Amino acid sequence: MEKSDFLKESFETAQFQLGGHGKRDAAILKEAFGQVEDAMPSDHYGNGEVIEDFQLKIAKLLGKEAAVFFPSGTMAQQIALRIWCDEKKLKKVAYHPLSHLEIHEEDGLKELHHIDSVLLADKGRVIEIEDITALNEEVACILLELPQREIGGQLPNYETLVEISNWCREKGVKLHLDGARLFEVLPYYEKSAAEVAGLFDSVYISLYKGIGGIAGAVLAGSPGFAEQSKVWKRRHGGDLISLYPYIVSADYYLDKRLDKMEQYFREAKELAASFNACEEVSTLPLVPVSNMFHVYFQQPKEQIARVLAEVQKQSGVGFTSYLKEETEGNCYFEVSMGDLYTAIPKEKIAYAFQVLAQKIPS
Amino acid sequence: MEKSDFLKESFETAQFQLGGHGKRDAAILKEAFGQVEDAMPSDHYGNGEVIEDFQLKIAKLLGKEAAVFFPSGTMAQQIALRIWCDEKKLKKVAYHPLSHLEIHEEDGLKELHHIDSVLLADKGRVIEIEDITALNEEVACILLELPQREIGGQLPNYETLVEISNWCREKGVKLHLDGARLFEVLPYYEKSAAEVAGLFDSVYISLYKGIGGIAGAVLAGSPGFAEQSKVWKRRHGGDLISLYPYIVSADYYLDKRLDKMEQYFREAKELAASFNACEEVSTLPLVPVSNMFHVYFQQPKEQIARVLAEVQKQSGVGFTSYLKEETEGNCYFEVSMGDLYTAIPKEKIAYAFQVLAQKIPS
Repeated sequence: MEKSDFLKESFETAQFQLGGHGKRDAAILKEAFGQVEDAMPSDHYGNGEVIEDFQLKIAKLLGKEAAVFFPSGTMAQQIALRIWCDEKKLKKVAYHPLSHLEIHEEDGLKELHHIDSVLLADKGRVIEIEDITALNEEVACILLELPQREIGGQLPNYETLVEISNWCREKGVKLHLDGARLFEVLPYYEKSAAEVAGLFDSVYISLYKGIGGIAGAVLAGSPGFAEQSKVWKRRHGGDLISLYPYIVSADYYLDKRLDKMEQYFREAKELAASFNACEEVSTLPLVPVSNMFHVYFQQPKEQIARVLAEVQKQSGVGFTSYLKEETEGNCYFEVSMGDLYTAIPKEKIAYAFQVLAQKIPS
Repeated sequence: MEKSDFLKESFETAQFQLGGHGKRDAAILKEAFGQVEDAMPSDHYGNGEVIEDFQLKIAKLLGKEAAVFFPSGTMAQQIALRIWCDEKKLKKVAYHPLSHLEIHEEDGLKELHHIDSVLLADKGRVIEIEDITALNEEVACILLELPQREIGGQLPNYETLVEISNWCREKGVKLHLDGARLFEVLPYYEKSAAEVAGLFDSVYISLYKGIGGIAGAVLAGSPGFAEQSKVWKRRHGGDLISLYPYIVSADYYLDKRLDKMEQYFREAKELAASFNACEEVSTLPLVPVSNMFHVYFQQPKEQIARVLAEVQKQSGVGFTSYLKEETEGNCYFEVSMGDLYTAIPKEKIAYAFQVLAQKIPS
């Protein structure tokens, strides 16, 4: 068995897990469909009550006039950027160097849409207004990801968002929100989804991060934007005859978890503090601004994997199933708070951190 | 209420319907998941038992080395053609003028992949070997749709398929099968899926036509082709974190219906004969070669809509929910045989055709 499998196994067999909503298994779907009438008609290529009602609900939540359900955020965001590029007749957009589009999509934006990217800011920090005003080439659209997932879920100040939004409107540059975790940052900003979304011309949200649905995304904006996005959705092969398995689940878990984002945020700060109290361990950001953060160790991955596996076995509390090496000799994992944390007895968590503190090499 | 709604309502409220498997409602999903363990793990971005096992099953069924599950055929086929075009460094493919790619995909192939299409044969007939040998420009790939859906589901002879396949191999042109309804044509050809698929370099099948799943498609070919298709699937935004709602349903209904294709074919011939026995009504093709056919009337759509609505109300047998005008003064609808036909009492069907014969204007 490889070391990483060893770590994964000790995580999965632990009685408790610190992060997430639990295993992604068929029970997620079955629970969501438990209350659904057999006779509920499927959506049909983007039409029908089940999809239209949900789109309206999300549009309202985001304070936008229209919203369109997509199978994935990858599809939704490429399409948003394509629409803005076509409108400006300029195939160039700007975003963070660790944007999902830049590192997780096999260059779909470039290969399918022939859109070039200008990378804003350094990898290790969020985009600030200075990065925007220093732009020395014209772009059709700027994409901001809130929070910036790959650096532990960091956020610019809300005032910075307003400044960026104002700058974009003044310069005629469209501003798109990668809001994969938008609901998760609202407690920190102390703003409504509509207030944040109002700063952007188009907004993407994900339905399986903090919400914990099965898959799926929504793209929101003006009615004209939404209509264009449907044409591109068909071109991408995303206009399925039936998307209701994702929509019904998203709707169910949205209702269940939207009001829990405050709790996840509070618990993220509490849990991060526990990690930071451990010498040789630190979180990024030090104080979380959403439900997520990264946990860093200044020792090699192989060594920490062994330690964490032991801690997980001995304490019965799962910290992580994997470790990633950022630079040689260090490693990290990601935590996203969900429904599981609150169900763990406090003394169990305290014990787990006690074991971690003992076993971690200094 | 519009006339078309009037027709639709009389169809949906009729006690029986001639075509299809029944309403596309949530019961389809719930039945498929009825026997699934809560603990069945989700697939995860294309990995995991649920997706890998199903892909292997379809690969084996099609006699191909590898298969990849896609959310849609639109996505799968564009990608297949893109791979073959890239391999040949020639962005040109040939297919029927009424191919799904040409008329139902908002030109995704052209807009996303910049692939040009050469249209083979006249709209009203299937592609023959002469259309291929007469090609006066080089193409990377030829796509054949079996059966040709938009002309009632017609088929070339099997010998023609062999000739086309041989020609393509000789000339170094890839041959792709749009097998959205591949299983549905096997009883006519008296061949296995693998025998037909063996004539092609890549094969797409749909999982919600005769099979009656919720959505989804599979693309099959060589291992190298499959690997490339996964990269493009990610670029298209089709590499979802979870595709299992479609996969589990597809697997369930495949097992349930694969052996019924012979029955659907036999019943299609029987039902088409009933239509053709009616003066002023004819089917295309006259004798079906799959589970589908089109029903033509040589009178205006509005007139026939009224007649059919009356027939459906009086007889309690639903023929169609819609009519399409092909040329002015005629109209048609499509029938695809499924599970419903066999459950209708024979005398009910006989009565419905008797009423139709009485009411149809000559």
